[in-house]
Amino acid sequence: MSKLTHIDETGRARMVDVSDKAATVREAVAEGFVRMSAATLDLALAGEGRKGDVRAVAEIAGVMAAKQTSSLIPMCHPLALSKVEVRVEPAEGGLAVTARVKTTGPTGVEMEALTAVSVACLTLYDMLKAAEKGMVIEAVRLVSKTGGKSGDWSA
Amino acid sequence: MSKLTHIDETGRARMVDVSDKAATVREAVAEGFVRMSAATLDLALAGEGRKGDVRAVAEIAGVMAAKQTSSLIPMCHPLALSKVEVRVEPAEGGLAVTARVKTTGPTGVEMEALTAVSVACLTLYDMLKAAEKGMVIEAVRLVSKTGGKSGDWSA
Amino acid sequence: MSKLTHIDETGRARMVDVSDKAATVREAVAEGFVRMSAATLDLALAGEGRKGDVRAVAEIAGVMAAKQTSSLIPMCHPLALSKVEVRVEPAEGGLAVTARVKTTGPTGVEMEALTAVSVACLTLYDMLKAAEKGMVIEAVRLVSKTGGKSGDWSA
Amino acid sequence: MSKLTHIDETGRARMVDVSDKAATVREAVAEGFVRMSAATLDLALAGEGRKGDVRAVAEIAGVMAAKQTSSLIPMCHPLALSKVEVRVEPAEGGLAVTARVKTTGPTGVEMEALTAVSVACLTLYDMLKAAEKGMVIEAVRLVSKTGGKSGDWSA
Amino acid sequence: MSKLTHIDETGRARMVDVSDKAATVREAVAEGFVRMSAATLDLALAGEGRKGDVRAVAEIAGVMAAKQTSSLIPMCHPLALSKVEVRVEPAEGGLAVTARVKTTGPTGVEMEALTAVSVACLTLYDMLKAAEKGMVIEAVRLVSKTGGKSGDWSA
Amino acid sequence: MSKLTHIDETGRARMVDVSDKAATVREAVAEGFVRMSAATLDLALAGEGRKGDVRAVAEIAGVMAAKQTSSLIPMCHPLALSKVEVRVEPAEGGLAVTARVKTTGPTGVEMEALTAVSVACLTLYDMLKAAEKGMVIEAVRLVSKTGGKSGDWSA
Repeated sequence: MSKLTHIDETGRARMVDVSDKAATVREAVAEGFVRMSAATLDLALAGEGRKGDVRAVAEIAGVMAAKQTSSLIPMCHPLALSKVEVRVEPAEGGLAVTARVKTTGPTGVEMEALTAVSVACLTLYDMLKAAEKGMVIEAVRLVSKTGGKSGDWSA
Repeated sequence: MSKLTHIDETGRARMVDVSDKAATVREAVAEGFVRMSAATLDLALAGEGRKGDVRAVAEIAGVMAAKQTSSLIPMCHPLALSKVEVRVEPAEGGLAVTARVKTTGPTGVEMEALTAVSVACLTLYDMLKAAEKGMVIEAVRLVSKTGGKSGDWSA
Repeated sequence: MSKLTHIDETGRARMVDVSDKAATVREAVAEGFVRMSAATLDLALAGEGRKGDVRAVAEIAGVMAAKQTSSLIPMCHPLALSKVEVRVEPAEGGLAVTARVKTTGPTGVEMEALTAVSVACLTLYDMLKAAEKGMVIEAVRLVSKTGGKSGDWSA
Repeated sequence: MSKLTHIDETGRARMVDVSDKAATVREAVAEGFVRMSAATLDLALAGEGRKGDVRAVAEIAGVMAAKQTSSLIPMCHPLALSKVEVRVEPAEGGLAVTARVKTTGPTGVEMEALTAVSVACLTLYDMLKAAEKGMVIEAVRLVSKTGGKSGDWSA
Repeated sequence: MSKLTHIDETGRARMVDVSDKAATVREAVAEGFVRMSAATLDLALAGEGRKGDVRAVAEIAGVMAAKQTSSLIPMCHPLALSKVEVRVEPAEGGLAVTARVKTTGPTGVEMEALTAVSVACLTLYDMLKAAEKGMVIEAVRLVSKTGGKSGDWSA
Repeated sequence: MSKLTHIDETGRARMVDVSDKAATVREAVAEGFVRMSAATLDLALAGEGRKGDVRAVAEIAGVMAAKQTSSLIPMCHPLALSKVEVRVEPAEGGLAVTARVKTTGPTGVEMEALTAVSVACLTLYDMLKAAEKGMVIEAVRLVSKTGGKSGDWSA
């Protein structure tokens, strides 16, 4: 059980102590995908060049959600984020979401990047669900992380 | 563009007017999946029978997230939820999450159910990431909705 | 186990379904007490007649906390509160806090009243802790509830 | 003092009791203005036709802020909003913001409309402050309200 | 477009990267004004010397709002505030609000000071609107900022 | 009045300036107790060995509440918590709650530990209130604090 830092030796949840870890620059990149029909994708992109379109709403929701990560994920440490960028791009069969998050802190921002991606995907679903309820959020995953004692990692 | 209720005729985002819709009982069920190695799944289930284990943390996080849906999704209406239940069950290749949400209100709870599932999946990732950073959140989707003028729907 | 409505038959937590319950007027009154030395109580009351004094800050914090109850208590239903009043009064050995909360909804506001009292007590502690760290929050309890199918109750 | 419903007869703040008021459709419109130099206004409008531009960010922030009104304004009742629309338009000497909010509830949405306008104005300031710190938020006011026992009102 | 740090080269919004900026002491002062009739101003000041009066509620709301700034303003960085002070003073034709905010961080607290002022003004409106709906929030602006690489600034 | 750091020389509330205080490791431990009948205590412990039981829900709620402390307590500084652990244990006549919180910051985490305890106690009440409304939250107090210029303290 010792492999799970948020679970103590008696099997109970805790926010693990990071007070001995150095505050260093850390970055994480995550991605996800909202699969939809070609007709819905056309609708999503129809607003291009206009304010308030579907992609802008999702990007902004993702940035704001990154800042709420420690309120949403019970054992997640609050961190002062130094950068958040969320991008929604059209791709084969749907919309692809990427989030890049940085902090100067004692622990990484993987959860912040994944939360930004998830909420951007949910927002795309919300904006487009009047056209297609069968959309699926897929492949939400960490792409890479850099910084911190555990070193760099990429998928 | 008229198919997207959260976008007005000029292409800008809005929270659509639901004041003419009747407050009726509505329910939505959503699901998602966190794919992981057999070793990580064993770790996740090792806490079975003990308090605070991985699945309980994710279920509770999902219930609490459902109540934050309208704070996270920009154009989502605030709703008084009358029931939220989130369940995490072991499955082939990972952990499956299901959320059931009900309201008596003027609009549906699809987003609440999907948000509960997404945050429960993110919490599972957070609780288990010390063991495996390559886990993937997959197949987050609406299973069914009932109630409301647009009628019932199932995937 | 059936006596605990927030626990299902398998022992797992859920927000219980209240969609069949009528929306009726419900009220709850709760109280608590912050025990402190006579010197600290004098300090607390020294601001009487001046703006921003200790009691006003605690009363306002209590009202605002009542509105956050469903964000803080995992299985608590979100409710549209129709009245919140929090009062801090000097008493023998400390400050007494009372909260009165009303709703027109499908479930009671006991948790809202207790949360308002608890946060008002915590705020009193915060405002006065520079003078005395040994203060104790005591006797936080429900005084009465009215309305709803389960009927009236008083301590 | 009886004219101020959020202050009781002893001069202390409270969230006034609205449980006897009928839940009816109510609407409020508010407006505000961010005064800026012609150069800054040009910059603000330069993103026109592109995603994520200044105006879209402010409109979305305004909608989301309307939903946080009762968390920000101490004595404000939580309400289930049925519509929120925020629009930012170029005007002589700056950007004009208008918010329209509706509810079916026991009290009005004036504060929600004013909060949406204020936060949209603050967001415009934030997006443009790298160009001009001397911008001024002006003329934030209620334009009209309809519904409720106190009847209609317009500025 | 490069003048707007929260907009990238493609015109899309982002929270700009501040991870290379030093954490230094920074302060900002902002002000605003709520214009009202002499009769309403009298009402507002009638509670002087009593707990919970109108000015105290607005000052406390302003302090609490400063801490929510990064949740309200989409591209605003979360910062650990080291001081917040909000003061409401009677002035010719209404109530004047001033906020002083400090941080030790990588970016300034202009938005926190402006948000504190705006929410204090909104709270004054809410507390007094039963007497006069036509009040106007005016002249919300940055007075000065100190600290940080861009140097000091005053209006 | 100078003994109360959150009150200025004119008797008005403020978040005291901590920008001159060093960021050092600080820890606080707090405790509280929920008194209940033997029958209710049996019910609370009946879920032992099962997921989602009463104690796990309260422990998780306590951890999450610690992170919301500065949103709930008006003059409390926001802090980046580096550890939160909440434990609920059966004791004579009820359930005992203990919280341990750490930060590396300019001010202590007494309020965070007390808030975690209070919300865990409230959650126990919520989970068990269907069985006994007369439970009482007692003896919420600081046990010890370490770190910071004012030195160590224990009850």
